Amino acid sequence: MNGTVETKDFQPIERLAIIGIGLIGASIALGARKRGLARHIAIADRSPTNLARAEELGLGDSYHAGADAAVKDADLVICCVPVGASGDVAREIARGLMPGAIVSDVGSVKGSVVAQMAPHLPKSVHFIPGHPVAGTEFSGPDAGLPDLFVKRWCILTPPDDVDESAKERLIGFWTALGAMVECMSAEHHDLVLAITSHVPHLIAYNIVGTADDLEAVTESEVMKFSAGGFRDFTRIAASDPTMWRDVFLNNREAVIEVLGRFTEDLIALQRAIRWGEGDKLFDLFTRTRAIRRGIIDLGQETEAPDFGRGGER
Amino acid sequence: MNGTVETKDFQPIERLAIIGIGLIGASIALGARKRGLARHIAIADRSPTNLARAEELGLGDSYHAGADAAVKDADLVICCVPVGASGDVAREIARGLMPGAIVSDVGSVKGSVVAQMAPHLPKSVHFIPGHPVAGTEFSGPDAGLPDLFVKRWCILTPPDDVDESAKERLIGFWTALGAMVECMSAEHHDLVLAITSHVPHLIAYNIVGTADDLEAVTESEVMKFSAGGFRDFTRIAASDPTMWRDVFLNNREAVIEVLGRFTEDLIALQRAIRWGEGDKLFDLFTRTRAIRRGIIDLGQETEAPDFGRGGER
Repeated sequence: MNGTVETKDFQPIERLAIIGIGLIGASIALGARKRGLARHIAIADRSPTNLARAEELGLGDSYHAGADAAVKDADLVICCVPVGASGDVAREIARGLMPGAIVSDVGSVKGSVVAQMAPHLPKSVHFIPGHPVAGTEFSGPDAGLPDLFVKRWCILTPPDDVDESAKERLIGFWTALGAMVECMSAEHHDLVLAITSHVPHLIAYNIVGTADDLEAVTESEVMKFSAGGFRDFTRIAASDPTMWRDVFLNNREAVIEVLGRFTEDLIALQRAIRWGEGDKLFDLFTRTRAIRRGIIDLGQETEAPDFGRGGER
Repeated sequence: MNGTVETKDFQPIERLAIIGIGLIGASIALGARKRGLARHIAIADRSPTNLARAEELGLGDSYHAGADAAVKDADLVICCVPVGASGDVAREIARGLMPGAIVSDVGSVKGSVVAQMAPHLPKSVHFIPGHPVAGTEFSGPDAGLPDLFVKRWCILTPPDDVDESAKERLIGFWTALGAMVECMSAEHHDLVLAITSHVPHLIAYNIVGTADDLEAVTESEVMKFSAGGFRDFTRIAASDPTMWRDVFLNNREAVIEVLGRFTEDLIALQRAIRWGEGDKLFDLFTRTRAIRRGIIDLGQETEAPDFGRGGER
């Protein structure tokens, strides 16, 4: 558990292009630099503020307002933009891409990204969508962390006819960043993420909104007594609004499918409360503990009693 | 914000009786001992295992299988049992209570506790219900933390005709434990906690159950990719099943009222996703950030990017 990464076997990328330098783009840049995974890191961002800040922070070796200039001669291009901007980026980089380049992304939705990007990309590049399942509730270039991906999963959704050596190269890059890699179809990815990420975020946003609207309880009371559980929802509901809007608009079907099940289950629980069916509640509350245990055992969570945070310090 | 507590002005309790030695009872015992707030701590628990463990941990000065023996000569009695057991405890301690004693509790629901306990308590004692809004996802005597209440709120719901000196005494005790105290009606408490604690817990339990039931996504996938947001829900959904069953059964009306609003809001969000109304989503996701900011400013949360936990270590 000491965070060491075996990078010996990884032959550095000659030129890595990162399109979009927010939390994830900056973390890839910092992680690649720290581990010597790329000889040159080219950074592009359509926001002059973000680009200037990336340069101040020294995240890359060259900085470009146009994504087409950044991807020139790049052997690995990673698009790190909100999912809704994927199509525009693909159109913009298409003319600059080198034959044989690997093009990937980090979007939280994969089906929509493929639909948006694939039509614009030349047949001479290897398009392998990706999604590192890692992040914090912060955003922007300052939010980058070089070890953000260590011990986290990165999902790749290669097409059926993927070039195996390109796939291995991309797996090698993420592994060298510290991640564990799993491949699956874009469709399955979108369903898995709907339950593990998208719907939990929507629910968190929703309850914070419901609380804010309650006339009988003041905002000050909500904040003061938030240690009872609400606090954890506000952390999730503080994530980047643009990114999340795009996630929901672009993973509509899977999100609505999982939300339907969630609401059905919740209404059954509400009915159990109304009718005093304590056994049904107790059974669910016991079953959920086992899943928590499994996540800790997998190293995806720490065991410290975090509810009491602040109290012990 | 350095956690120092002014205990100089607090005249120690002669005999403090703690009925039920779980997470909260043990934390009161440890906190009172650390700060010299009680000359004698008498502990009762109907579970022989918990009582023996409390004695091994040296949490008190005397240990009693019967609550009636523990409360004998006690000037402050705090019942720390699941809400559903409050009536039984009141019946059991009634015969042992000293005239003038203060009787309080720590239940997450107040209206039901008053209804269960008040009829059994003699008129000669001061019954002032309480609820420290603090906890962790762990339970049992081993889970106690002496500083659990530091900088956390403790809500008291004194009756209209409360004896002012008894109220001040109880406020002084909680303040000496490090807590901030606020008084309100039992009814208002139950509504405030429904939104800040009870419904968030129910939602967390519910989504963990929904995930577990999804046929198309394996349990292993749910656990592996939980860093995307789901993980935080499992932490909440690992709390004590008995305690939470009792909370929902005993705060039925407020929970169902808040749940109704939550579901209504969620269905409106689902509709916005279905119809591609990105602005509605963006507006909510922006508004919720401000509440998070307020909670951090109030010192009820830390600012560290906790989503990335494990990654930085």
